[in-house]
Amino acid sequence: MIFRQLFEAETSTYSYLLGCERTRRALLIDPVASEIAEYLELLNSHHLKLIYTLETHVHADHITGAGLLREQIGSKSVVHRDAGAMCADLLVTDGVSLQVGDLDLQVRHTPGHTSGCVSYVMADRVFTGDALLIDGSGRTDFQQGDAGQLFDSITYKLFTLPADTLVYPGHDYQGNTVSTIKQEIAKNARMGKGRTRDEFIAIMQDLKLAYPKFIDKALPANQSCGLVTAEK
Amino acid sequence: MIFRQLFEAETSTYSYLLGCERTRRALLIDPVASEIAEYLELLNSHHLKLIYTLETHVHADHITGAGLLREQIGSKSVVHRDAGAMCADLLVTDGVSLQVGDLDLQVRHTPGHTSGCVSYVMADRVFTGDALLIDGSGRTDFQQGDAGQLFDSITYKLFTLPADTLVYPGHDYQGNTVSTIKQEIAKNARMGKGRTRDEFIAIMQDLKLAYPKFIDKALPANQSCGLVTAEK
Ligand SMILES: [Fe+2]
Ligand SMILES: [Fe+2]
Repeated sequence: MIFRQLFEAETSTYSYLLGCERTRRALLIDPVASEIAEYLELLNSHHLKLIYTLETHVHADHITGAGLLREQIGSKSVVHRDAGAMCADLLVTDGVSLQVGDLDLQVRHTPGHTSGCVSYVMADRVFTGDALLIDGSGRTDFQQGDAGQLFDSITYKLFTLPADTLVYPGHDYQGNTVSTIKQEIAKNARMGKGRTRDEFIAIMQDLKLAYPKFIDKALPANQSCGLVTAEK
Repeated sequence: MIFRQLFEAETSTYSYLLGCERTRRALLIDPVASEIAEYLELLNSHHLKLIYTLETHVHADHITGAGLLREQIGSKSVVHRDAGAMCADLLVTDGVSLQVGDLDLQVRHTPGHTSGCVSYVMADRVFTGDALLIDGSGRTDFQQGDAGQLFDSITYKLFTLPADTLVYPGHDYQGNTVSTIKQEIAKNARMGKGRTRDEFIAIMQDLKLAYPKFIDKALPANQSCGLVTAEK
């Protein structure tokens, strides 16, 4: 398998390129619009055909590259049915499997950060978007966020994965790149160390985060697969 | 490839089983609820795992087996986004590709019989549901049917396929099993022989078909993947 963790520094966003070496088919998880040139170069140099772009959710902090990639190379955009992105080509729900060459992906619905959040499980790893972050979690104070629901998603849909499963998040602001389910259960400041649901809800209520500076531009753009420019 | 054309005689419905010999993964196009036992037996005897059931549309004349198969063996239900079957697990749109083992399927949106009709193209064959029938077409007088739209779907989405493409319809009432795009262009009584759009619309308006006897039971059932029983 070809695997690249890609970082967009302005919004600390991780994107992931996965390619099948036998069939040269590929997918991109959470592409960022500003990084399209890098993706095309990577796909090209590895002789990969991009089949799907997969969103873990409708992002509030950056513009997805799904629409631009669809325009330029015909990849199809995958989003959860409840994400409110009717621009998407393929709407998924919990438990659905998608295959790209020899790569098998399974969708897990992990709402709480947003109602349409999913994680993508692939062999030994899971792409958790903004549900489970390394030593943290996504915020739950906008986009139908719900701390109790996020606790349940992480507890029952992610912490139940095999302990050695690699955790690849949608963001990291401290330079972490990867963790494991075991490590997050043991150490995650919000969700680990045996935290209860009520403790988690109290932590999330106490965060008093600033209103996300980019959300009023990013949300409508991402509901259209990123093709409504932020300037409009 | 493992391939079976299956016939349900009461409603003259064709269903199709396709299996990948290498991975033993399979899909079923337009399964009928009453035939579940036969499907399970076939899957079992060929050691196949059913990944998806795919609907060409929400049927008015028989109950889909998608929901029962999902309950019994965990297959996921695939339907077009506009079909109004929110019970489905995977909502597709025009141009999307799905892979099952070594089988590659492409979705073509072919509305006109219903607004959510699709055809599935696979290598040398196309599964046309009730859009294009052998020497006929689906009716267009209910379920958002639109004769002009169906003419355009068949003309631009099906008759543009390679001439030797095998045509496998959703029904046949005369004992036909298979045709080709070439044959339908040449011979189809409604759509072939150079028929114009206006001629097709006039033909469809003149059919004066009886109200489908099963539609008031089948539609609500199929919008729930067949799990609302017809007796309710
Ligand atoms: Fe987010
Ligand atoms: Fe039909």
